[in-house]
Amino acid sequence: DKLTVGFETNCVPDLAVLLEDARQEHFDFVCVPLVHPRFSRDARGVSETRSTPLTRSDLLLDSKQWGSLVVGKISEWIDLDSPCADTRRSSEVAFKQEMAWVSHLALAAVMLPTPRPGAGANYSRCLNQVAQELGYVQAWVRIPTVWPQSEQVSCDDGSGVLHVINAGAGTAGGGEGIKPAGAVLEDPWETWSRIRTLCEHLACLNVVLELTSDLPSEAALARWDGEQVRAVIVRTNIFLTNKKGYPTLSRRHQDLVMWLMRFKLQFVVKGRPRHPKGYLPYLQYLDHLRTRRQVTPPLHERETFEAPYLDFLQSPLQPLMDNLESQTYEVFEKDPVKYSQYQLAITAALLDTPEDKASGGVTLLMVVGAGRGPLVRAALNASREANRQLRIVAVEKNANAVITLRNLAITECWTNVTIVASDMRCWDAPEKANILVSELLGSWGDNELSPECLDGAQAYLKPGGISIPYEYTSFVAPMSSHKLWRAVESMGEVKRMETTYVVKLHNFCQMAKEQPCFIFEHPNVPLPGTGGIDNRRYVTLSFDVQQSFTLHGFAGYFSAKLYKDIDISIVPSTFSEGMFSWFPLYIPIRQPVQLRAGETLEAHFWRCCSDKKV
Amino acid sequence: DKLTVGFETNCVPDLAVLLEDARQEHFDFVCVPLVHPRFSRDARGVSETRSTPLTRSDLLLDSKQWGSLVVGKISEWIDLDSPCADTRRSSEVAFKQEMAWVSHLALAAVMLPTPRPGAGANYSRCLNQVAQELGYVQAWVRIPTVWPQSEQVSCDDGSGVLHVINAGAGTAGGGEGIKPAGAVLEDPWETWSRIRTLCEHLACLNVVLELTSDLPSEAALARWDGEQVRAVIVRTNIFLTNKKGYPTLSRRHQDLVMWLMRFKLQFVVKGRPRHPKGYLPYLQYLDHLRTRRQVTPPLHERETFEAPYLDFLQSPLQPLMDNLESQTYEVFEKDPVKYSQYQLAITAALLDTPEDKASGGVTLLMVVGAGRGPLVRAALNASREANRQLRIVAVEKNANAVITLRNLAITECWTNVTIVASDMRCWDAPEKANILVSELLGSWGDNELSPECLDGAQAYLKPGGISIPYEYTSFVAPMSSHKLWRAVESMGEVKRMETTYVVKLHNFCQMAKEQPCFIFEHPNVPLPGTGGIDNRRYVTLSFDVQQSFTLHGFAGYFSAKLYKDIDISIVPSTFSEGMFSWFPLYIPIRQPVQLRAGETLEAHFWRCCSDKKV
Repeated sequence: DKLTVGFETNCVPDLAVLLEDARQEHFDFVCVPLVHPRFSRDARGVSETRSTPLTRSDLLLDSKQWGSLVVGKISEWIDLDSPCADTRRSSEVAFKQEMAWVSHLALAAVMLPTPRPGAGANYSRCLNQVAQELGYVQAWVRIPTVWPQSEQVSCDDGSGVLHVINAGAGTAGGGEGIKPAGAVLEDPWETWSRIRTLCEHLACLNVVLELTSDLPSEAALARWDGEQVRAVIVRTNIFLTNKKGYPTLSRRHQDLVMWLMRFKLQFVVKGRPRHPKGYLPYLQYLDHLRTRRQVTPPLHERETFEAPYLDFLQSPLQPLMDNLESQTYEVFEKDPVKYSQYQLAITAALLDTPEDKASGGVTLLMVVGAGRGPLVRAALNASREANRQLRIVAVEKNANAVITLRNLAITECWTNVTIVASDMRCWDAPEKANILVSELLGSWGDNELSPECLDGAQAYLKPGGISIPYEYTSFVAPMSSHKLWRAVESMGEVKRMETTYVVKLHNFCQMAKEQPCFIFEHPNVPLPGTGGIDNRRYVTLSFDVQQSFTLHGFAGYFSAKLYKDIDISIVPSTFSEGMFSWFPLYIPIRQPVQLRAGETLEAHFWRCCSDKKV
Repeated sequence: DKLTVGFETNCVPDLAVLLEDARQEHFDFVCVPLVHPRFSRDARGVSETRSTPLTRSDLLLDSKQWGSLVVGKISEWIDLDSPCADTRRSSEVAFKQEMAWVSHLALAAVMLPTPRPGAGANYSRCLNQVAQELGYVQAWVRIPTVWPQSEQVSCDDGSGVLHVINAGAGTAGGGEGIKPAGAVLEDPWETWSRIRTLCEHLACLNVVLELTSDLPSEAALARWDGEQVRAVIVRTNIFLTNKKGYPTLSRRHQDLVMWLMRFKLQFVVKGRPRHPKGYLPYLQYLDHLRTRRQVTPPLHERETFEAPYLDFLQSPLQPLMDNLESQTYEVFEKDPVKYSQYQLAITAALLDTPEDKASGGVTLLMVVGAGRGPLVRAALNASREANRQLRIVAVEKNANAVITLRNLAITECWTNVTIVASDMRCWDAPEKANILVSELLGSWGDNELSPECLDGAQAYLKPGGISIPYEYTSFVAPMSSHKLWRAVESMGEVKRMETTYVVKLHNFCQMAKEQPCFIFEHPNVPLPGTGGIDNRRYVTLSFDVQQSFTLHGFAGYFSAKLYKDIDISIVPSTFSEGMFSWFPLYIPIRQPVQLRAGETLEAHFWRCCSDKKV
């Protein structure tokens, strides 16, 4: 849980000495140039004829040290998108040579030069070319949070003329089919996004954020939540000095660093120390932010429970098709909110149900899909609270859960509970119930086929009887998450893109407020004429794009009304605090889509039904 | 590294009490029936109408305890290959019900009943049917090392007549297309092999060996080396009593248990204690065998080095196509045997080379494929030992290794070494060498294209010059290894079956002595007429099958003659002790082949060449 912090420098007279110094300063790794800048002239063919080595020997460290202590820096003079052809070509030669050396050393990561603002086409092509050789090496693309206002680039074409280029003026890369950026300086995220797209989301490609003194708007920063930021470079000159003379960051920088610390990433400190006592105060300050993040607010029990599931894709349960396992029941039965909401709802419904004289004042309640009995328990509790006599019929199709129910009926003396081992869709009920209770909802509401199951079960609800829940709604919101999209894509099959995943969304950015999608009510009203029930749905939703972003799919949520205003919800704006039974749904799209600020995203959602399938 | 030992019993009045007792006796898990035997009558439809539970509740333990402390036993009365249709059908019903309960509990493993000797067809079909639901549950098929001589089976068809069946008489399963076994009792391994084959090598299917008082021949036992034995059941009644009154095993049982301990497996103790002090002496005895195995013989450094590589499939290196990484060189340079053999060979070759007056008594030695220089070092050492002046040309195509060589030339003052950054196949040598040294061999000798490389390099060897090595031979042997075959098969692509793997063979059984396959000599003699060199090969090898077994492919080895009788070898019978640079090759076949004792296995091996490929 400790921070991993590296030290970046361009001055390495002796690598072993530097490593020892860095270790004494409590750094975990160093980030150093692979080749001395004097070799830049060799890129024009000189090195072929030289008999002296290009760089220091790999024997200086053993391979374990190379792999764990050193991040190699590709020479900073390399400018793959230079408008000057000579510079571009010699850059390519040197880039390939240095990347080959990286593969040879099998470093954990290589730090690539910052791409030109608004460019990146040739940068991407060269990366694609060497990516196969990289093996497990991660390629870190260095992107500043804001560009320096303009850049002075010297074109080394021998003319001696300095070409002053407005960054982002689109002079580079135009030939490769990339729309030249406008005169306005393109946002660094957009340059990164272009490189990522042109490299077709290469697994080894990662972004490293270099914090600048100025920071962009919150909305612009939020887009980094959808990216997998691997490291954050913190220059010593962005630190302020506090009253005691120690380094500190501005409030916005603090918030940004603490926010980024939610993800698993590393830090790199760059530049010479500008405060007393060397680098230690900087490391201590970063660690102080880490601790503060964990302490305020203190982690809820829910967060501890959720930690291992962050961004972990799971296939949605299909309880209708598959029998749930014992351990699945065990987890869901522990939800502290869901069953107390059900108990409240049942109590209220009981109080609203007139006592039926004919049956001796006993209300008949059916639990359809009783599982291992949590709703039976909730109903028994409600019966006591409402002080109403109850008969319960618990219908359950899973023969294994029936074994548990029958054991519970003995050990907990359920004298007024009848257990029926049957599928609710085809059971022939001998009598009709006053109240029908079910918990058949998935992360996206109806996606576990609650409507279809309850359509069958409502046959044994008395006219005017109560269904708990009586209404539920699914919600969707557009989102960006390179990590989740990559995780689905790396499964290697198109059909993996054409399904949904239950996942505790973490490394993601929701780009617009969620909107309702499908609504279902119970008891369901049959279609006039045919008498059949129509559970098909089709909606078209429009989302306004406030900020350019990459659409990787949609987040799915639901809310359900149990009885009157008693509800449960996993919609962010109405979330039932403390409830952990449902994580959101991730609905991937086949290819990420680039959206620009001001555009409108129109999304179509269908729920299609046949006799056998939904 | 501790043994994991379970306790098997059929008598479980209270599961929690049994678990506590077992824990106090130092057992790690228990192996207990899932359903009480009295429910055997329910299999005929009674349970459908009962309202009492089929078995104890899953709430007795939490899911973590079920998953880690309990191996469930399917009822032993279940006889899926019974000749009696009634018994077979009620067995099937109960089997499915109990397996569903196993899935519900998500146990780590389920112990299936011992199959009928010589049968297994219906057993396999039923297993196939439920396998999909099993998830991560392992199915343990219980196989005794020898069958009881005959079995008395009561056919519960209500007639009250006891049918006495000679086990293996082939009465069961004949209808499912399985060849009925002969009158001779089929070997238990063959019954297991049939079930494994009929279940198409299901990943969840595993064999558990039950040790019997009598043991079969060593050759029969050896076939279990090709299987993945997950557990060994040791009944207390197979133990003898030593002078001090403690349990001990016979010499053959000891050897077998220690041999099996090489694999990662668990033990299960069954039966009541027959010696004082409960079960502890049995556990202590097993642990004593574990310790003895590790102590005698003491583990070599080689074994420690190899431990993580046992049965680990690696793609063979392709140093001609890919540049090796720094860490690969690092590992191979540490071999304590290979380079000292080369040094011996170079010394002897130097002494046999007449001093060339024309060149001032200096011998020219070329290292083709110098890598990071180990052969250069061996040659420099040999030059001192032979007291002969040497000039060395080191040819290396990997630009990264050239960086190391050039650094070494500076730091180690290689004044008489010329480094040439070039591919030996196309370098235009300015002069011819007396001695040509290379190390281009793979696990199967020529499989890293040594012949093709040296054919190019021999152009710069003087007539009568010496090539080190001057001859190498590949070897093959038929082998059985369900584990390795499954590992390849589970990669899911046919092309994975059509290549070779470098692997430290461990869970395998070589079924015949290895035979020479392809032989190459250097310098290679051109074909008369054309002047071209023919590196194509085709051999047909015949192996006598001594014992029925499942052929999963071939093991590949090589030996090489460096100079005169100085050689290196990974062939088991001539192994260069201490050398670790090469693991054997596993050559898989697409489908395992069942071979019977007395048959002859004929295998064809081709080495095909084109201009571009071999």
